[in-house]
Amino acid sequence: MSKISWRPGTMVYPLPAALVTVGATPEEWNPITVAWIGTICSDPAMLYISVRPERHSHAILMERMEFTVNLTTADMARATDWCGVRSGKDFDKWKETGLTPIPGEKVASPTIEQSPLSIECRVKSVTSLGSHDMFIAEVLNVRADSRFIEPEADRFALEKSGLMAYCHGHYFSLGEMIGKFGFSVQKTPKAKK
Amino acid sequence: MSKISWRPGTMVYPLPAALVTVGATPEEWNPITVAWIGTICSDPAMLYISVRPERHSHAILMERMEFTVNLTTADMARATDWCGVRSGKDFDKWKETGLTPIPGEKVASPTIEQSPLSIECRVKSVTSLGSHDMFIAEVLNVRADSRFIEPEADRFALEKSGLMAYCHGHYFSLGEMIGKFGFSVQKTPKAKK
Repeated sequence: MSKISWRPGTMVYPLPAALVTVGATPEEWNPITVAWIGTICSDPAMLYISVRPERHSHAILMERMEFTVNLTTADMARATDWCGVRSGKDFDKWKETGLTPIPGEKVASPTIEQSPLSIECRVKSVTSLGSHDMFIAEVLNVRADSRFIEPEADRFALEKSGLMAYCHGHYFSLGEMIGKFGFSVQKTPKAKK
Repeated sequence: MSKISWRPGTMVYPLPAALVTVGATPEEWNPITVAWIGTICSDPAMLYISVRPERHSHAILMERMEFTVNLTTADMARATDWCGVRSGKDFDKWKETGLTPIPGEKVASPTIEQSPLSIECRVKSVTSLGSHDMFIAEVLNVRADSRFIEPEADRFALEKSGLMAYCHGHYFSLGEMIGKFGFSVQKTPKAKK
């Protein structure tokens, strides 16, 4: 296998194409599509989103310092893509996409009803990096679609909710399940070492 | 669809299960599996990884301030999982997994030969957040498997390289391609507005 130096770039994939909602009032509520997003700490639970300063939602984020991350499914792909290429300055994205905002619980930003899992966050710091500002936030609350809760296992079966992945300009459904975390030490002789 | 408040947690998915390599010499080289990883800025290209201080690779990262992100495929799933549950303190992970380190180009940390795409990084800052330290890094170089380069389009077809995704304790292949970025405005009447 031969390796070629490619241009330095942002090639970490696959990622979520999350719908991040911002705004303190129904008139201000706006969903923006964000792939520069991830978990940065398990305990306390913290995540980041990176957003370009020129985006309509950026000013709202700076003012309200709260947002909600709504995970997206294959069924939401068209709406998610649309919210990534159109601006809330020009459109009522809710009306255009059919996505439904419902009031937040711990934050004023809304939860998207169609999303299987929504994460309510409070911004702790903002760092300007260049093209993007990174918003570091603590997780205040998680709102989950009750259909995917498995009470007997006390877990949320996120992997059954039809999430999609974003990979270098393409949206994908999740495909075949390969294994669970730890599978490599459960079945091989190495596990007995 | 009813929404239930779930415990606040780290539910941003799907994510990569990247093999991050650290170390300045072949004796020190070690791969560690990292899902807390993402792009934080497009220009300049920057990313982060979050690593627990008690991990074997953490001390090496702190000393060397360089690392390489190696994306992982379904074929690499068993090795990737194994590197996430075993420690380089106890094992020679290269020998145990069959992964092959080759020398880096712009950094001393190695590239994994089996990975379709590797990203060489220099650490710019380290922030302690709690369970994890966040390493913010600039991208110095990208090394790509030449089989996936499409010269006519001047692009790397990452989406054809068999990447896998990690979702809440499960590894998945990428499945059906749903659409390309921008597809929602190319086919609907709304695009003509």
